[in-house]
Amino acid sequence: MPEHTSDVVVIGAGLIGLATAWQLAADGLQVTLCDPAPATQTSTVAAGMLAPVTEVEYGEDDLLALNLAGVNAWPDFAARLEDATGVPAGLHRTGTLSVAYDVDDAAALRRLAEYQRTLGLEVEVLTGRESRKREPLLANGVSGGVWVPGDHSVDNRQALTALLRAVEVSGVSLIRQRVAQVLTAGTTAIGVQLDDGTAVHAGQVIAATGPWSAQLKGVPDELRAPVRPVKGEVLRLRVPEAYRPALNHTVRATARGFAVYLVPRPGGELVVGATSNELGYDTRVLAGGVFALLRDARTVLPVIDELELMEAIAGLRPATPDNAPILGPSGLDGLLWATGHYRNGVLLTPVTAAILSATVRSGTLPDLGKPFLRSRFGHF
Amino acid sequence: MPEHTSDVVVIGAGLIGLATAWQLAADGLQVTLCDPAPATQTSTVAAGMLAPVTEVEYGEDDLLALNLAGVNAWPDFAARLEDATGVPAGLHRTGTLSVAYDVDDAAALRRLAEYQRTLGLEVEVLTGRESRKREPLLANGVSGGVWVPGDHSVDNRQALTALLRAVEVSGVSLIRQRVAQVLTAGTTAIGVQLDDGTAVHAGQVIAATGPWSAQLKGVPDELRAPVRPVKGEVLRLRVPEAYRPALNHTVRATARGFAVYLVPRPGGELVVGATSNELGYDTRVLAGGVFALLRDARTVLPVIDELELMEAIAGLRPATPDNAPILGPSGLDGLLWATGHYRNGVLLTPVTAAILSATVRSGTLPDLGKPFLRSRFGHF
Repeated sequence: MPEHTSDVVVIGAGLIGLATAWQLAADGLQVTLCDPAPATQTSTVAAGMLAPVTEVEYGEDDLLALNLAGVNAWPDFAARLEDATGVPAGLHRTGTLSVAYDVDDAAALRRLAEYQRTLGLEVEVLTGRESRKREPLLANGVSGGVWVPGDHSVDNRQALTALLRAVEVSGVSLIRQRVAQVLTAGTTAIGVQLDDGTAVHAGQVIAATGPWSAQLKGVPDELRAPVRPVKGEVLRLRVPEAYRPALNHTVRATARGFAVYLVPRPGGELVVGATSNELGYDTRVLAGGVFALLRDARTVLPVIDELELMEAIAGLRPATPDNAPILGPSGLDGLLWATGHYRNGVLLTPVTAAILSATVRSGTLPDLGKPFLRSRFGHF
Repeated sequence: MPEHTSDVVVIGAGLIGLATAWQLAADGLQVTLCDPAPATQTSTVAAGMLAPVTEVEYGEDDLLALNLAGVNAWPDFAARLEDATGVPAGLHRTGTLSVAYDVDDAAALRRLAEYQRTLGLEVEVLTGRESRKREPLLANGVSGGVWVPGDHSVDNRQALTALLRAVEVSGVSLIRQRVAQVLTAGTTAIGVQLDDGTAVHAGQVIAATGPWSAQLKGVPDELRAPVRPVKGEVLRLRVPEAYRPALNHTVRATARGFAVYLVPRPGGELVVGATSNELGYDTRVLAGGVFALLRDARTVLPVIDELELMEAIAGLRPATPDNAPILGPSGLDGLLWATGHYRNGVLLTPVTAAILSATVRSGTLPDLGKPFLRSRFGHF
């Protein structure tokens, strides 16, 4: 059987795997990255919100700290990526406007803003009229809002293009094959075996395997990553010249209890997301999902009706029992996790790459990553 | 300049042009058919209802007669097409169920059924419960229906595939180029000139140019066909195995005043249509159109939510001032029209081909076609 040897082998070339491989190569390591179809799955479907504040959930303080580190890491990461590749990384620092449609929606939004304030986050409560001043095309029915200047967005497809180029120029060896299994010697991972039987030996294996993490072969049953796929449908619309920009900022909305977000891109794209369904590995775009997204989006932004529907697409979020990622040592020596990012994959791409690279180089998981060890879920 | 000569040159290879060219070739004539992209426009978007009864409008008696001839011509046409090609023509004789959602919808449907009866058409008025007996997945809110046993459907894409094969095997010369203009000598059309300058000479020119008919160059201004494009958006859904068949018949519905139709195909496809917008040659699929189709379809058939959205597509109906087609002599000797079929292109394909072939062979427009001369609109 043919063999390769690297310092590190990374499994999975979505945003997390690509960024981690690039970071390790930039830090001087010899890296092999394996994926049968790089940059084609969940990472291409995402809307790319960097929303640690607007997405904060009650009681998820460790995750909030990581998410804030995530958004803070993006500007430097984007600058380095652009320097390395000469192509745009896709970061758009627009701020985010959360709006509420009816009075129940507004009450919930104000309560969340109070909680955000107690956490020391920067938020500004707005009336409906003040919200429409920031976004003139919002519906008259929008009854209130919260302005979050620090929540931005990334064009995930631009970031993928830049990262594919970055791994290329940094000398990462990209193998377009599926990993059949992690290879072990005793209780230590020593590399991976590809579908064609080739062995890739490495001192460290990093599994950036997203929603397929629980299926990774070669990981002892009791150490498997408890990651399940949660389908999300997203629409990509095109704003005609006459209506541009339909939005100036990312807009998150609650409309009659339903959440929807609208992420504008320079150039006229508007991404509308996202549904959430636990249907296994099903990525069919269902009519009911598209209907719900359009219904909620046009409730808060009536001009939606005049936009061209370019794409309806579904991806699989890698979800964990506590909605937080799984980072660092796996319990199997030589195998590190970089998975389970659920709704925060784009946001956490730079900080995950930095944490994993530091762990490989120093042998120690940085403090920021410690709450996210696989071991917090116990053994199965 | 290179030249070709034929008995007949047909401009446009949508359903009408293809069927007319095939009919003429089957009748022994030498035929050239010109289209830069055969079978790619309006004919591929259509839902393919054969609905002379369910689509009847007050006061359009001549059109009703033509439409009834259209549906009656389909079985023999399909049989001949299948004989000639060995591929299915796509005719599905399922009957059509018209249903009404709220009480206003039901009142309008009953009034239409009365009118249909006075015209001698076969219709059966049903209660909501009787309607659900025929189609068990209809919403409980469906308050009444009308069963129309004679209105069927055709898989227009299957028909196109069969017709493309039919023109090939019957010796039609298919030239994949745009017609730049009709060539004339005095007041007689003598052929066409293609984009590359080639002249195709023919004793008869037939313009099956659909929504582009008014732009046909070489036609004197005062004889132009008053055809305008009316955009229609259509969805193609896939019914999962578990829910098949979601519908047994074509279902037309009025839901809170909005009309929608659902056309099931063997194999699990369900076509939902159609919006109607006059926006010139714009074929963008707008979010508002998709929303309206889904809203109305799921109102009458809630299982719509569980179907996969395979395609959202828009086409241009060739509409005329009186909604009826333009058939036969154009006022320019040697030029015949076969255009302006608006919403009835699939329905009228066989009868149009037969009328045009008879006109070419006998020099006289059959009586059935006489109400549809271009001259009814006067000169411009």
